Amino acid sequence: MEKNKNHYAIIMAGGVGTRFWPSSRSSYPKQFLDILGTGSSLLQLTYKRFLKHFLPENIYIVTNVAYMDLVKTQIPDINMNQVLGEPTAKNTAACIAFASSKIHHINTHAISVVAPSDHLILDEDTFMDHIEMAMNYARKNESLITLGIRPNRPDTGYGYIQYIDEGQENNIFKVKTFTEKPTLEIAQTFMESGDFLWNAGIFVWSGKSIRNAFKEHLHEQYALFHEASKYYGASDEAIQVQKLYEQCRSISIDYGIMEKASNVYVIPSDFGWSDLGTWTSLYEISDKDAHGNVVKGKNIFAYDTKDCMISANGQNGRLVVVKSTENLIIVDTPDVLMICDKNHEQEIKQIVTDIKLKFDEKYI
Amino acid sequence: MEKNKNHYAIIMAGGVGTRFWPSSRSSYPKQFLDILGTGSSLLQLTYKRFLKHFLPENIYIVTNVAYMDLVKTQIPDINMNQVLGEPTAKNTAACIAFASSKIHHINTHAISVVAPSDHLILDEDTFMDHIEMAMNYARKNESLITLGIRPNRPDTGYGYIQYIDEGQENNIFKVKTFTEKPTLEIAQTFMESGDFLWNAGIFVWSGKSIRNAFKEHLHEQYALFHEASKYYGASDEAIQVQKLYEQCRSISIDYGIMEKASNVYVIPSDFGWSDLGTWTSLYEISDKDAHGNVVKGKNIFAYDTKDCMISANGQNGRLVVVKSTENLIIVDTPDVLMICDKNHEQEIKQIVTDIKLKFDEKYI
Repeated sequence: MEKNKNHYAIIMAGGVGTRFWPSSRSSYPKQFLDILGTGSSLLQLTYKRFLKHFLPENIYIVTNVAYMDLVKTQIPDINMNQVLGEPTAKNTAACIAFASSKIHHINTHAISVVAPSDHLILDEDTFMDHIEMAMNYARKNESLITLGIRPNRPDTGYGYIQYIDEGQENNIFKVKTFTEKPTLEIAQTFMESGDFLWNAGIFVWSGKSIRNAFKEHLHEQYALFHEASKYYGASDEAIQVQKLYEQCRSISIDYGIMEKASNVYVIPSDFGWSDLGTWTSLYEISDKDAHGNVVKGKNIFAYDTKDCMISANGQNGRLVVVKSTENLIIVDTPDVLMICDKNHEQEIKQIVTDIKLKFDEKYI
Repeated sequence: MEKNKNHYAIIMAGGVGTRFWPSSRSSYPKQFLDILGTGSSLLQLTYKRFLKHFLPENIYIVTNVAYMDLVKTQIPDINMNQVLGEPTAKNTAACIAFASSKIHHINTHAISVVAPSDHLILDEDTFMDHIEMAMNYARKNESLITLGIRPNRPDTGYGYIQYIDEGQENNIFKVKTFTEKPTLEIAQTFMESGDFLWNAGIFVWSGKSIRNAFKEHLHEQYALFHEASKYYGASDEAIQVQKLYEQCRSISIDYGIMEKASNVYVIPSDFGWSDLGTWTSLYEISDKDAHGNVVKGKNIFAYDTKDCMISANGQNGRLVVVKSTENLIIVDTPDVLMICDKNHEQEIKQIVTDIKLKFDEKYI
């Protein structure tokens, strides 16, 4: 894909999730962590991925104002005009409306890809081929395009997109429905039907298409950002944006627009994707030793141990010794040690809630 | 038991074991740790136990010179003349010969109890009753008396003492044999026979009896300490003791004397004893929560977890969260975390050896 002055990338980096707790904290969420042990955070990997195919001045990062410094530290080359700080988290619709109105303010011919900052994409070439395909389609058609992942298991942790397998142009299908996270039985039927894809939260559209979609389906947000855009570049921009966010309701782009719009399309994709939503998802996609262990970090010694996910940073020469255990998630951080059976990691969420009740924000 | 000016207690505190690794280290062995979570180290508990029934000036602690400061810190009231520093560890025979010759130098009518510094004794009254019984016997008879523990399981980790169940005076029996650690089958037959006791390494004798025993069975050590005692109190005492230890062979009192002497007696005892030899032995004797967990330390939260032994000191507010695990030993120290299945703790020893190979003394 050639770099095009009308092509923009919007990286959503406002997540505050504690799904990789205790490695992730509300002050240092997952997108800023080198969760894969590559030497780069997920945000840095996402940024580099787009930098190969987008002009540097056309890559925007939307994050919470609290993380602006973290973004600046991790992406020192970015112009801070392209780092958009949200005063409060108001879900993906506000994030996208904000970035889209910013870009529209500069370039009314923009075609944008919107992508989360904290997902794994192994096959970047296929990913970019599909983005290019979507951008070409978006230039010619007033449409909202999403990349859907072909499911390889009946995962109950994702939303699904059903497409209509007829009358498609190339590999771009009309979407029939968006569905919430299903039960296992329903996920199984989705898998078998062959026309359901995982919703990866990756979107492509023209500035005009997304503006029209907001105008029609989330008119209030459209009006708010339309009003605010008068102040872009002005000295009181941050104050105006803050006012706007106070009035803005919190709604996802899926629920607010994608489920309602009639011009939604999907490209079935398979590019080694994971939302890296849990320790187990990291375990699944990581290289394992001969005994099925994933060991991320330094000074970790596992004896007679299998199928464990061990993460420890070896800070200050700290040593982790594991002996004759199985199927555990072990996460050692400077102030929290967590040991959890892999089959019970969904319950880490409740633990985080409980620890928050006990200690307030201290360990969160 | 009334305090008697001829009654002495010798506490052996020279152990360098790493059995409670990573809590115990060669620079801070088990006897100096508050392994029971009572606020006192095992050495402090042992010292206090004797202080109730012995004159303070009659309690001696034998330790490695490297631990003299630790002893002084933990037992600040003790006169340092009563803390005997061994230049090198030469097993229990040298330790006992040293302390005995020191005490003989001061009081030729001494009756001494010798006891390890790092064992658990729950029923101190019964323990002291048996010590008193042994001391009374030792005063009247040239004998070497040991307290043997009635076994409640066929433990293969202890040496056993077989006694002759006839012609005894009160509860003091003549010893037939000392045996090394048995196999499980043999331990089973020992249990069933009823005349085998665990060797707890607790001895009582008069100064005269133990001197004669050394003279007869370990004459070389007798001669060395006899020679050295000329220098006790002199300015070059430490140098003379060092010379002596260089020449002294390393042998246990059991192997060097008890197994050979003919005047050895045993008092079958039951006073809630454990040698606290392993994490599991600590687990066994500790109070458990409703799910069979033993939790020692601060800021430890176990959810849906059972039969685990968790030790963490909560230093610097460190948090330990354990979820849905079973039968684990979890030990969190500032520089080492160890997680080990309880059924495999015997292998911790090899791990310590391996870590030593990799890092030398750093974590040992």
